[in-house]
Amino acid sequence: MSIKKIRMGMIGGGKGAFIGEVHRMAAALDGGIEFCCGALSADPDKAVTSGEALSLPADRIYGSYQEMILSESQLPDHQRIHFISIVTPNFAHFEPAMMALENGFHVVLEKPISFSLEEALLLQEKVKQTGLLICLTHTYSGYPMVIQARQLIADGKLGKIRKIMVEYPQGWLSTRIENDTPLAAWRTDPEKAGQSGCMGDIGTHAAHLAEYVSGLKITKLCADLHVFVDGRRLEDDGNILLRFDNDARGVLSASQVAAGEENALKLRIYGEHGGIEWNQQEPNTLLVKWLDAPVQIYRAGQGYLADAAKSNIRLPAGHPEGYIEAFANIYRNFSATLQHMSNGQEPDANMQDFPTVEDGVRGMQFIDTVLHSSRSDQKWTDF
Amino acid sequence: MSIKKIRMGMIGGGKGAFIGEVHRMAAALDGGIEFCCGALSADPDKAVTSGEALSLPADRIYGSYQEMILSESQLPDHQRIHFISIVTPNFAHFEPAMMALENGFHVVLEKPISFSLEEALLLQEKVKQTGLLICLTHTYSGYPMVIQARQLIADGKLGKIRKIMVEYPQGWLSTRIENDTPLAAWRTDPEKAGQSGCMGDIGTHAAHLAEYVSGLKITKLCADLHVFVDGRRLEDDGNILLRFDNDARGVLSASQVAAGEENALKLRIYGEHGGIEWNQQEPNTLLVKWLDAPVQIYRAGQGYLADAAKSNIRLPAGHPEGYIEAFANIYRNFSATLQHMSNGQEPDANMQDFPTVEDGVRGMQFIDTVLHSSRSDQKWTDF
Amino acid sequence: MSIKKIRMGMIGGGKGAFIGEVHRMAAALDGGIEFCCGALSADPDKAVTSGEALSLPADRIYGSYQEMILSESQLPDHQRIHFISIVTPNFAHFEPAMMALENGFHVVLEKPISFSLEEALLLQEKVKQTGLLICLTHTYSGYPMVIQARQLIADGKLGKIRKIMVEYPQGWLSTRIENDTPLAAWRTDPEKAGQSGCMGDIGTHAAHLAEYVSGLKITKLCADLHVFVDGRRLEDDGNILLRFDNDARGVLSASQVAAGEENALKLRIYGEHGGIEWNQQEPNTLLVKWLDAPVQIYRAGQGYLADAAKSNIRLPAGHPEGYIEAFANIYRNFSATLQHMSNGQEPDANMQDFPTVEDGVRGMQFIDTVLHSSRSDQKWTDF
Amino acid sequence: MSIKKIRMGMIGGGKGAFIGEVHRMAAALDGGIEFCCGALSADPDKAVTSGEALSLPADRIYGSYQEMILSESQLPDHQRIHFISIVTPNFAHFEPAMMALENGFHVVLEKPISFSLEEALLLQEKVKQTGLLICLTHTYSGYPMVIQARQLIADGKLGKIRKIMVEYPQGWLSTRIENDTPLAAWRTDPEKAGQSGCMGDIGTHAAHLAEYVSGLKITKLCADLHVFVDGRRLEDDGNILLRFDNDARGVLSASQVAAGEENALKLRIYGEHGGIEWNQQEPNTLLVKWLDAPVQIYRAGQGYLADAAKSNIRLPAGHPEGYIEAFANIYRNFSATLQHMSNGQEPDANMQDFPTVEDGVRGMQFIDTVLHSSRSDQKWTDF
Repeated sequence: MSIKKIRMGMIGGGKGAFIGEVHRMAAALDGGIEFCCGALSADPDKAVTSGEALSLPADRIYGSYQEMILSESQLPDHQRIHFISIVTPNFAHFEPAMMALENGFHVVLEKPISFSLEEALLLQEKVKQTGLLICLTHTYSGYPMVIQARQLIADGKLGKIRKIMVEYPQGWLSTRIENDTPLAAWRTDPEKAGQSGCMGDIGTHAAHLAEYVSGLKITKLCADLHVFVDGRRLEDDGNILLRFDNDARGVLSASQVAAGEENALKLRIYGEHGGIEWNQQEPNTLLVKWLDAPVQIYRAGQGYLADAAKSNIRLPAGHPEGYIEAFANIYRNFSATLQHMSNGQEPDANMQDFPTVEDGVRGMQFIDTVLHSSRSDQKWTDF
Repeated sequence: MSIKKIRMGMIGGGKGAFIGEVHRMAAALDGGIEFCCGALSADPDKAVTSGEALSLPADRIYGSYQEMILSESQLPDHQRIHFISIVTPNFAHFEPAMMALENGFHVVLEKPISFSLEEALLLQEKVKQTGLLICLTHTYSGYPMVIQARQLIADGKLGKIRKIMVEYPQGWLSTRIENDTPLAAWRTDPEKAGQSGCMGDIGTHAAHLAEYVSGLKITKLCADLHVFVDGRRLEDDGNILLRFDNDARGVLSASQVAAGEENALKLRIYGEHGGIEWNQQEPNTLLVKWLDAPVQIYRAGQGYLADAAKSNIRLPAGHPEGYIEAFANIYRNFSATLQHMSNGQEPDANMQDFPTVEDGVRGMQFIDTVLHSSRSDQKWTDF
Repeated sequence: MSIKKIRMGMIGGGKGAFIGEVHRMAAALDGGIEFCCGALSADPDKAVTSGEALSLPADRIYGSYQEMILSESQLPDHQRIHFISIVTPNFAHFEPAMMALENGFHVVLEKPISFSLEEALLLQEKVKQTGLLICLTHTYSGYPMVIQARQLIADGKLGKIRKIMVEYPQGWLSTRIENDTPLAAWRTDPEKAGQSGCMGDIGTHAAHLAEYVSGLKITKLCADLHVFVDGRRLEDDGNILLRFDNDARGVLSASQVAAGEENALKLRIYGEHGGIEWNQQEPNTLLVKWLDAPVQIYRAGQGYLADAAKSNIRLPAGHPEGYIEAFANIYRNFSATLQHMSNGQEPDANMQDFPTVEDGVRGMQFIDTVLHSSRSDQKWTDF
Repeated sequence: MSIKKIRMGMIGGGKGAFIGEVHRMAAALDGGIEFCCGALSADPDKAVTSGEALSLPADRIYGSYQEMILSESQLPDHQRIHFISIVTPNFAHFEPAMMALENGFHVVLEKPISFSLEEALLLQEKVKQTGLLICLTHTYSGYPMVIQARQLIADGKLGKIRKIMVEYPQGWLSTRIENDTPLAAWRTDPEKAGQSGCMGDIGTHAAHLAEYVSGLKITKLCADLHVFVDGRRLEDDGNILLRFDNDARGVLSASQVAAGEENALKLRIYGEHGGIEWNQQEPNTLLVKWLDAPVQIYRAGQGYLADAAKSNIRLPAGHPEGYIEAFANIYRNFSATLQHMSNGQEPDANMQDFPTVEDGVRGMQFIDTVLHSSRSDQKWTDF
């Protein structure tokens, strides 16, 4: 009999965590994933109370990720989880991910994939060895209108791509809130977040989005990073000139101190015949601009969309889907792929459209390259 | 020990149904509701295959709603479902709802609550008798920025309300698709939808929204309904002049033949000092207009919102929530209320903010009044 | 030799007047009209100082309109003005207009054309007798994207028109400013404005726009007018159900007490195949909506526009034109028509696209019908 | 007696010219400037027919700018023009401007002020010597909401400025239209436009706007320019990292090959407490963003604006003004300044708010610095 529900465990995401809750909602939304067990906090007591609050069965609430991985690997096939979502801060990605892979579990990881590029390369190696999957939650590539944009470009509708402008302004770190706000504390702490602040946290999303939609690769860049808030240890703003492998030019700008901005990730790509514009805060709309014809407003849920976009939409046009649904698309595609693999079927191309360990390695390389460029007097640093 | 998860059964919503799937996603999103059983189709075979596809346990997939209600009522307390979501077409609301109430189950119902006003009044009576709850899924009042608007008005920020403009243009029935499209077929069939098309389907949402946000009641109205598509049996468009109990004036316009529109429910309310504007297609934004000061853009997720709005938001500002989340708010508030009732606690005011049987009765009265007015030569019909 | 510049005189529009200044800017913009003389105020002293401030030659600054009309009619052909712009309050339209026509001058008039329907009919009669022109400044039909919308509909692109929604919310009369504000004082005074406030002032614009763009005529209506501000003598708000001569339905809503609104005239028209949406506050954009294709954003200045629109645009796309330019289009078309007439040429169709005495008569009939309907208990009043 | 109208002559701007016509409309709009004479083309025949078409008196239609300057300088005071607008291509700015200044005429010049920085410095020197004025038509700083933004920042409302993002995407040169399109031909020809294409034409506007509104100066930059269209001789795209004198960071991006864009100049500035956003294509709106309060929509024509903005607005809120009006503000302020100077009065600060020769020199330095940076391997080039 074929597997119906894919079973998930979680590491991190206990009380007060933001992104762990998002992962759980995303996994729950479509009814294809069962949340079975968790090691929800590094603090064993908090792990237990968090697990109880989520109605996990008592015997599958674990006090540590090691315990969880070992115990779950002993369970019979029809009970054992298929994958583990790791939603800890960056510094605590690598070890649980590696242990999960070594014990036969697929992994879902928050971006950036690891604390350092070295760790990312080791994870990549392990994925190759084991044949298991890492799914990286670059949420924004789960939005259907992003996928529609990618399809238009892949189909050549815009002609050769010339210019890419991607920006990600946030304002929430405009003042020194890291002393009071746990979410801000680890993100601004080089011991926990890694060497980069703004670029690691959101710049990587912007870079991934630009490459994902355009189908191009950044080949060199010129970065100007800065810490605006006194006493902060990691950069909270940066602007980067980009060059792509087809000689397209671009700009990536990201900020955590753009006071008054929320989460205004925006992508514009221009080719010979037209351009696209997508704004995460109104994600169900894609502007498609043409050289000599009216701009078109593509909208989620419409019949004229590409199949690749449609397969990531749940509702008719005019019924807005948002961030959780985009997140859920990644979970849904990942879990459908696992289901097909379990059943010995070949997953289709749309299902397999989720970010993987390769995107994770590329993200870490991006961070390294940006940091190198920012410290350099030379204009261009190769990526 | 207190109950943790609230248990749900479903009537209707089998393969191919749209709204049943939305109910399931909404119920699943927040992890507090367990979907336990279903009589998912009037066709027993389809009921079974639909239940299997959703991984329901075989012994709780029922071939008819009668069987489900009777069987579930025999189960022990810790297994028995707490409520039943009825997601059938309008003509099939009343009987299962009545039987559910008679057997001790709370009910979630799609709007309009019933096929006729008489049925609605009988349900209201039964709710009074049993002390059970009917939750009516007027989704749009589940959006946090709608709740924020209501709060601003309740707090007197706009002064006395003078004018209300509510519109609900859709275009999907611009041609005679009812022959090919099941969703359209029953909505345009008086045997299944009731005496009203456009007004029953979406006009009731608009009227509910206007009254919910303004805190006012429509006291009389003047309606002009029309069937534009040849051969259609129920009105597909209507415009209505409104008068409210504080002498405010208004217009309600709804259409299913506004070609090119999606689901563009929009509410504007003006008082002595300012106005609000909310558009369902960009639901995380609320415009607040002032007589002598700049318009303000209120946004979901911001710290300055009222608690009543905040308690219906899951994500930080700039991470869009949509239709499913609004729907889930209604499920979450309803199930939290049930949980509190089960545990002998008093639910708080925000939890109880979901539409009930009273809203259902009012909706049916609205439909009756509109139909009467549309046939009348008199300007005003009392509501 | 052919005439190059058309010569204009003005009645009203002295110091402190708003609309007179707009007329002068509109006439000056394109360099084809020479402002030669004026009787700029009913107060002879103010008439003189106003004329001097505008650098009019001393001998063509007149103390009364009668003096101006008589004196100018004595001047030789190459000096005498061709037309007179009358920019006085409504009650002072008729007499100068009639005298101007009787003395051989074409006339530009602000809407509403007169104080009463009777006056309008007399002006219409006089126009027929004399062969002279009245140009009525329904500014909004001078916007190029309005003309583009009209053309799309005339060309049948939207199919048969079904629904028209036109709204004109303003908020400036939300409080009783008429005691301090001359602009408000006469508009709310039945001795000066006529029997209607909001509908005469802005409702007529909305009705004209709806008919102009759709090419349809209102055949019956049902109006609900109201005075919201205590002590005000003319209605400051109204909502009207409309029926058109092709059986299309519609709503017209106008308000001067929509607190926080500026001048938000907006028109939406839906036909069988699609719809248009135009908003005066962003006048260079026209949304064109289609049943099964993406919404298109038509923009002023683009090459794909109709000739009728292009001939009313001065700048390339992306260089916004506004209210004064729309006003100037009416002046430009009117003066080009006069020029052609003077030179014995036939003006082309686009030139002749300015509102005339017929529109003025229709506007007065609209006001009368609305007032009658608002007082009636019958649903429909024939127009 | 004090002068009432300021008298203008024009060099360039004959038939088919775009910007000359804009200058004439801008000068005519407010009635304070009289267009008296012209040398409208380098081709004497075209100069004459162009002058006749504009109804200039025959004796003040000149066949060359030299003739015009000499003849006009012989006229008596009450006839002689006060200033000359030079609207020729860049290569033909310097000589007529210099000759005009030498003969006692003030000058209005299109940007960039000259063909080379050397010429700009010579003009600056001549202005100092003569006490005459050069007014440079950086149109965009004539928009009232730009001035409002400048005022908010000058008043410290945003706190210390941290980040400036200015972009100017156009798409009109996406293909090689320069062979057919005179407007494109000279702009892409280094013999006529100078060493820079995109940056000289529109990048200078963006840089001026950023500095004008922020009150800051660019101190170093890092530019990446590119020619996208095969065979084009001047860059048609560029991205630039910016640093400002208070250590703020920024990005300037300009393009003539952003296919589907019109004239989408946009400025965003972020400070410690909030940010502003202004978009030229919707110029009557200014978004003002705050760290912990709702975004505000400032609108032209509202009573809450600063006096500096109000003095550049003609119409009540909701009556859109556009590009010509912004242009006219520069003409109005410049001519009011001349009027005051002629009458021996001190012009007030708002009147004097028009770009001058200093802005022209800075613009040429900007172009030189950008070109140098683009060719350099070093990251930063001092400005």
